[in-house]
Amino acid sequence: MDTELIFRLATEHDLDRIVEMLADDELGSTRERYEKPLPESYLKAFKAIAADANNELVVASLEKEVVGVQQITFTPYITHQGGWRATIEGVRTSSSERGKGIGTALIQFAIQRAKERGCHLVQLTTDKKREDALRFYEQLGFIATHEGMKMKL
Amino acid sequence: MDTELIFRLATEHDLDRIVEMLADDELGSTRERYEKPLPESYLKAFKAIAADANNELVVASLEKEVVGVQQITFTPYITHQGGWRATIEGVRTSSSERGKGIGTALIQFAIQRAKERGCHLVQLTTDKKREDALRFYEQLGFIATHEGMKMKL
Repeated sequence: MDTELIFRLATEHDLDRIVEMLADDELGSTRERYEKPLPESYLKAFKAIAADANNELVVASLEKEVVGVQQITFTPYITHQGGWRATIEGVRTSSSERGKGIGTALIQFAIQRAKERGCHLVQLTTDKKREDALRFYEQLGFIATHEGMKMKL
Repeated sequence: MDTELIFRLATEHDLDRIVEMLADDELGSTRERYEKPLPESYLKAFKAIAADANNELVVASLEKEVVGVQQITFTPYITHQGGWRATIEGVRTSSSERGKGIGTALIQFAIQRAKERGCHLVQLTTDKKREDALRFYEQLGFIATHEGMKMKL
């Protein structure tokens, strides 16, 4: 990328824009509520993430505009000889900025953070309906070795 | 189950038995090191898990013997209107106790904990090589809607 993409922890002021991006998505539009004011549940979740040293809500900004978001969770496990893992979730880029490599840069940033935190593995799950996303992650080096299983409560 | 299966948080004294179970597994045997004394990395991970209010290492015990283990991670996300999720990892039951429903009881316990913690979703990934595990989780109500993608660092 020629222009300077900056990665930083999200602040409360970014929350509106983050939810806007999450809702501007085929699957996200059915499950988010981008309203003004935002439903309080978003702020509550933001505060829980911000208070947790093992969770990082990261935004990508381009010329001071937030154009991407992702959450990285670092988890210690007994498995793999007590290895830490990084899990990436909620990756979105601004629909007006697609094709500029922002998604790739976001994931590369997450991989870098995972290395800095001493993780032996980076993982994510992607909805099987998102065929483009599957190819995108494969090109970045992820392998779909696992089934991602979900149960709604 | 007729006999009484008890679920509790693991203590440091359970660690040896937990690693023994993790290593007694086709995939686990290639990546764990069940030695005496245990590699220090296991204790370090145990302490990190024990210190984290969003991680629970749970053992199942039957007549005071540890016969099963799993880790449950509770994570706040902005997605799904700021919803919490529970992630299950490292599920193992004692090879001498299989077929007694201990695995089912473990997962049902995790689902109960997820509800108590206000999660809207329980999730896990299972290696595509473990065909029996896939069927097991499907029978419990999990749906393989996602690809589970991993990248070793």
